[in-house]
Amino acid sequence: MKQIAFYFFCLFFLPPVTDAWCAAAPVSDATQECLECHATIHPGIVEDWQQSRHAQVTPKAAIAVTGLARKVSSKSIPQKLQAVAVGCAECHTLRPRKHKDTVEHNGHEVHVVVSPDDCATCHTEEAGQYSKNIMAHAYNNLAGNPVYQALQLSILGRPAREKGTVQMLPSHANTKADACYYCHGTRLEVSGFESRETEMGEMKFAILSGWPNQGVGRLNLDGSKGACSACHTRHTFSIEMARKPYTCKECHVGPDVPAFKVYTSSKHGNIFSAKHARWDFQAVPWTVGRDFTAPTCAACHVSLLVNTEGDPLVKRTHQMSDRLSWRIFGLIYAHPQPKNPDTTLIRNKDGLPLATDFGGGLAESYLIDDATRKKRTASMQTICKSCHHSGWVKGHWEKYEHTIEETNAATAVATQIMADIWKRKLAQGLGQGGSPFDEAVEKKWSDIWLFYANTIRFSSAMAGGGDYGVFADGRYHLSKEIQELGDWLKWRSGSAGRETTDGK
Amino acid sequence: MKQIAFYFFCLFFLPPVTDAWCAAAPVSDATQECLECHATIHPGIVEDWQQSRHAQVTPKAAIAVTGLARKVSSKSIPQKLQAVAVGCAECHTLRPRKHKDTVEHNGHEVHVVVSPDDCATCHTEEAGQYSKNIMAHAYNNLAGNPVYQALQLSILGRPAREKGTVQMLPSHANTKADACYYCHGTRLEVSGFESRETEMGEMKFAILSGWPNQGVGRLNLDGSKGACSACHTRHTFSIEMARKPYTCKECHVGPDVPAFKVYTSSKHGNIFSAKHARWDFQAVPWTVGRDFTAPTCAACHVSLLVNTEGDPLVKRTHQMSDRLSWRIFGLIYAHPQPKNPDTTLIRNKDGLPLATDFGGGLAESYLIDDATRKKRTASMQTICKSCHHSGWVKGHWEKYEHTIEETNAATAVATQIMADIWKRKLAQGLGQGGSPFDEAVEKKWSDIWLFYANTIRFSSAMAGGGDYGVFADGRYHLSKEIQELGDWLKWRSGSAGRETTDGK
Amino acid sequence: MKQIAFYFFCLFFLPPVTDAWCAAAPVSDATQECLECHATIHPGIVEDWQQSRHAQVTPKAAIAVTGLARKVSSKSIPQKLQAVAVGCAECHTLRPRKHKDTVEHNGHEVHVVVSPDDCATCHTEEAGQYSKNIMAHAYNNLAGNPVYQALQLSILGRPAREKGTVQMLPSHANTKADACYYCHGTRLEVSGFESRETEMGEMKFAILSGWPNQGVGRLNLDGSKGACSACHTRHTFSIEMARKPYTCKECHVGPDVPAFKVYTSSKHGNIFSAKHARWDFQAVPWTVGRDFTAPTCAACHVSLLVNTEGDPLVKRTHQMSDRLSWRIFGLIYAHPQPKNPDTTLIRNKDGLPLATDFGGGLAESYLIDDATRKKRTASMQTICKSCHHSGWVKGHWEKYEHTIEETNAATAVATQIMADIWKRKLAQGLGQGGSPFDEAVEKKWSDIWLFYANTIRFSSAMAGGGDYGVFADGRYHLSKEIQELGDWLKWRSGSAGRETTDGK
Repeated sequence: MKQIAFYFFCLFFLPPVTDAWCAAAPVSDATQECLECHATIHPGIVEDWQQSRHAQVTPKAAIAVTGLARKVSSKSIPQKLQAVAVGCAECHTLRPRKHKDTVEHNGHEVHVVVSPDDCATCHTEEAGQYSKNIMAHAYNNLAGNPVYQALQLSILGRPAREKGTVQMLPSHANTKADACYYCHGTRLEVSGFESRETEMGEMKFAILSGWPNQGVGRLNLDGSKGACSACHTRHTFSIEMARKPYTCKECHVGPDVPAFKVYTSSKHGNIFSAKHARWDFQAVPWTVGRDFTAPTCAACHVSLLVNTEGDPLVKRTHQMSDRLSWRIFGLIYAHPQPKNPDTTLIRNKDGLPLATDFGGGLAESYLIDDATRKKRTASMQTICKSCHHSGWVKGHWEKYEHTIEETNAATAVATQIMADIWKRKLAQGLGQGGSPFDEAVEKKWSDIWLFYANTIRFSSAMAGGGDYGVFADGRYHLSKEIQELGDWLKWRSGSAGRETTDGK
Repeated sequence: MKQIAFYFFCLFFLPPVTDAWCAAAPVSDATQECLECHATIHPGIVEDWQQSRHAQVTPKAAIAVTGLARKVSSKSIPQKLQAVAVGCAECHTLRPRKHKDTVEHNGHEVHVVVSPDDCATCHTEEAGQYSKNIMAHAYNNLAGNPVYQALQLSILGRPAREKGTVQMLPSHANTKADACYYCHGTRLEVSGFESRETEMGEMKFAILSGWPNQGVGRLNLDGSKGACSACHTRHTFSIEMARKPYTCKECHVGPDVPAFKVYTSSKHGNIFSAKHARWDFQAVPWTVGRDFTAPTCAACHVSLLVNTEGDPLVKRTHQMSDRLSWRIFGLIYAHPQPKNPDTTLIRNKDGLPLATDFGGGLAESYLIDDATRKKRTASMQTICKSCHHSGWVKGHWEKYEHTIEETNAATAVATQIMADIWKRKLAQGLGQGGSPFDEAVEKKWSDIWLFYANTIRFSSAMAGGGDYGVFADGRYHLSKEIQELGDWLKWRSGSAGRETTDGK
Repeated sequence: MKQIAFYFFCLFFLPPVTDAWCAAAPVSDATQECLECHATIHPGIVEDWQQSRHAQVTPKAAIAVTGLARKVSSKSIPQKLQAVAVGCAECHTLRPRKHKDTVEHNGHEVHVVVSPDDCATCHTEEAGQYSKNIMAHAYNNLAGNPVYQALQLSILGRPAREKGTVQMLPSHANTKADACYYCHGTRLEVSGFESRETEMGEMKFAILSGWPNQGVGRLNLDGSKGACSACHTRHTFSIEMARKPYTCKECHVGPDVPAFKVYTSSKHGNIFSAKHARWDFQAVPWTVGRDFTAPTCAACHVSLLVNTEGDPLVKRTHQMSDRLSWRIFGLIYAHPQPKNPDTTLIRNKDGLPLATDFGGGLAESYLIDDATRKKRTASMQTICKSCHHSGWVKGHWEKYEHTIEETNAATAVATQIMADIWKRKLAQGLGQGGSPFDEAVEKKWSDIWLFYANTIRFSSAMAGGGDYGVFADGRYHLSKEIQELGDWLKWRSGSAGRETTDGK
């Protein structure tokens, strides 16, 4: 009965491209051994894998596909992997000497943490592109940047009262892992090995620190960076999930990068929400209009898209800045994308590892030039033009670039006020030997560029509508907080407020 | 294979009412010409249209439908449109002399911006109702109201420091279009024409300012107001999308009008989220219980609803205030709906174009009277009563009307404090020749009525639950900010705080 | 045609477990009478019920099921209910003498409000468990706790200016019902009876106060507590809806308990959003991996789960603390779960009905002990381990418990600052004979533990990611508000700020 249901399911629900889906690929002996226990111990992940393409198609069949439909980018795949499903053993026993967490497990050398370098066995190009993606560097771009570390400490530090002020003591590793590095990725380490009694007798396990984590820039136990499972959730590792915006939401939902919230309030997001149950999220290549009628995050930033004639519009890229000219996540200003994904190398005119200085000047030599920006913009606009005429696209872009300029200008005004506050020693900034981020009034300032200017830019970039541009962490809040900052300076420096009523 | 899939799709997924759906209507020669290029150039919109009712049913067939199932309200439709699908040419070459953006394009007179007056060709009644809808007037109701303009400037202005205070310089047209007027609609204008080299040779295009925009009150190039595509997203223009709440979310998600957030947290929204995949969003008329089991925004505010006997409960209306007695979006108080959708005509007792004065008094002669309010309430309650008994409805309404009264009273207290602040010249309001909206403390005041009082009322109106009524921009925040306003006045006027510890 | 569509619907859409679904159970004469009018008057609820299991399966058939698939927990069911569908009359005429709202209605004794004690007729065990659930006591846990009442008054009170400060006058019953008690549940009362002219002639109705309400701790007219329909929405009363997270969202979406927001941003929520259209939400028992591949709220907190062999992992419980060791909703600190669901019985060392004192000390004798906590944690971890290895679960738990400790420590620092503010009489706390919750600066303090500490803990508990742990009401806001509190004390007590520039 279940089988009949599954047959009908396959017949009516799955898109034509997955003809092979319902015939599972043969499973290796090693994987069969894994499944014998783990199907019962961990039914969730085993069933998830059973539904995956990895369980249905052998690498041999996958590599035989020609043209744009090919999903496996490696030119060759090791012989012994070719004829079997990509199962437990195929990934978790790959390159055992490279993985510090490898242990002997029922006669196999097994590692827990599968890394992009393992996935590269079949998906070389994607792994290569991703290593040049700024996300792959998310751990060290935060942990290795002293300015960002000051911001991090002001947020994650342990508050303590010292001489009448609140100080931030160094934050705990567990706090970091639970907060910033949840998305940025942790540094995994093997802190030892232990033997534990299990249902199968005594077994050896690696003790991992920084675990569990699936952050985009995780430092793995084989020295590689990132986690493919951040977006291609284990153990289906599907294209479908990575193409749906819920995946991006995991890290892009707060007021600092409100991409998901803005998207779902945009016309594109509205179309997605209303219609996506009828779209094909598995088709490769992905055909505009036929497979989907409004872009998701992946459509604009990652996927290989073709028109209904099958002609490619944009190539697949896992280096997501490929179609981006601006980095609109401003810290503290929006700026052209950095040339190198390792942003700790940047130096602004004050010698700080920031793409702009506090006055808004660009650290130009570290940022992409005009020609590159134009090329990337053209690449993105190609996608827009699958549904919009040139005048539409031009008009949208004009507003967007203006909004970047406008929000940068507002940030500059806020920063000038803040600079006066520091100058008058009403707060201790860099010039006073302090952190520019940790005092109450400094957080008022960081709200402006970190939340409101960013939200306004995301709203503009994705035509995400009035609310995020105005009343939902938008211009209303930006203007309010600039006024508050100005008022704070006036009042605290004794040139406003009470005096008025005193007749001064 | 695709065709077979489509056949099964039609057979099992589409509701019975769309029997004609799978047989595409014949396409006019002109539209065929359009499609020949644009199917490849703009596959997204062409495929979207292919899936639309416009591509499937001729106006002749549509107008032949009798009774409540009829979707086309015009008594007659021009002969030449009757026998073909409503395709590219049918809309984009209609009334060419009326549209300022009309250009010669491959032998046709084509305009880019299709307007409600174009749609009125077949949908006369809906266009007529919508023109009386307050949304149709959203552009001028904002742009033509000096009080709202002061509020707008305080939000969208370019901040600049002048003599120690932050001033708001006039805002840029692109800022306006990217912010308030994204939802309200922009004023479209043809700023010129250009010739551009295209794949098809040199072609002429109109250069539009205020474009792109799909705001509900857009001023079009034929002089009409609004954009049907704001809710009936191009190029499917479906009833389905307009009936799903995601469409309303585009403009109604921020703390000023948190309708979508409140709805999805309400019992109705819960039922929608859990079950709507099995509902029929295309049926006309829309049968309570059979086609859907909980209302969406459209069900209560727009759609023609019938009971399971086919008896009408409420008529379709595109003048959405038809079922609304109150305008709960308070600026600064909630009040009965205005009589005229052009709200710039209103004058309160102080001569300002506001439905209430700052003390809360109503500009009564501009607002609907008790009899009209009762009639509209009865109309809305008819819908409630399809699922709820009279006692339920009465109890709900009692709470709702009380919440309006309560939030207006809280706003009055806040405004009295603000009036004292102005009186003591701690801020510059209207009486001091200033804007009542642009200073830091004034924004604290506007938070109260614009965000918190509104959120509380939306939560009450839709039984949207505890959170939006209490902790999510609700009464917690309203009470907090009133206390802060009171504290600000005391502290700044020298009658509180530090003195206490000084022993005064 | 409809019937054929329904047949295909049943065949392809409904899971195999519902074989009996499509054959409606016989309807009692009394229910038939109800339906004759109400199918037209209230089509929404009647159609909803038609789609319910109650309309499809007789209690006799339901009670005949053996093993884990059995949904009806009562050992016996009254004879006269056994052979008919669970229809209108079966519930609304049950135990008429027990319900104060019972009226004579067309020859039947009908009550409007069906209560858990009615449902217990067939679902004894669930009703029994729920009565021990803290939610069942939600009304009196709030209304009967003087500390919480002070907090409630500071939020729901009617603001009024008295001698220069804003006072909170007692809140109106309608305000309470529209706010806190929307979720907590109201106290229902019959305030009288009335006769009204209806389409069926004059009829008698009970007039209810506190109605409508479906809060989890509603005090019913038969003396019972709670509303099964809070989660099993009337009139399908389905397992499906209760298992989907939208139900929990109704009350758990604000910054105080942001469970839904955190969940949908977590990896689990991402999997749910992307894949749940293909899950089986009706299967009993609920099989991990086969029926669903990521937990919803219900999976972790309520449902009976089995592995793919059919072996039970956890038993069904409607006493939701059964799998919870901590109560992370801190007022003012997170603490071990209380022993008794009636939390008004608790006394901390200061004699207040709070699980902790203001210094963070636990009212230990009222809270579950270590052994119970370990047992509950083990029960929850059993679920985790269906998809995660022991090292993963251990690592997650270590971070989670650390986050509880860390947020409690931050709350302690904030409370020490607040205590200093009270001590210096800059605000009036308990020691000064005032409410600790109602002044502007006190609300700054309550933001810290009520919103930010809670949000951080929910984010950690559900691995809900970086944003809710950092920038979306997380550690950024917590650290900001602690700094503001410290700054407020310094400035208001005259030891900071302006003096600096005055050279003092």
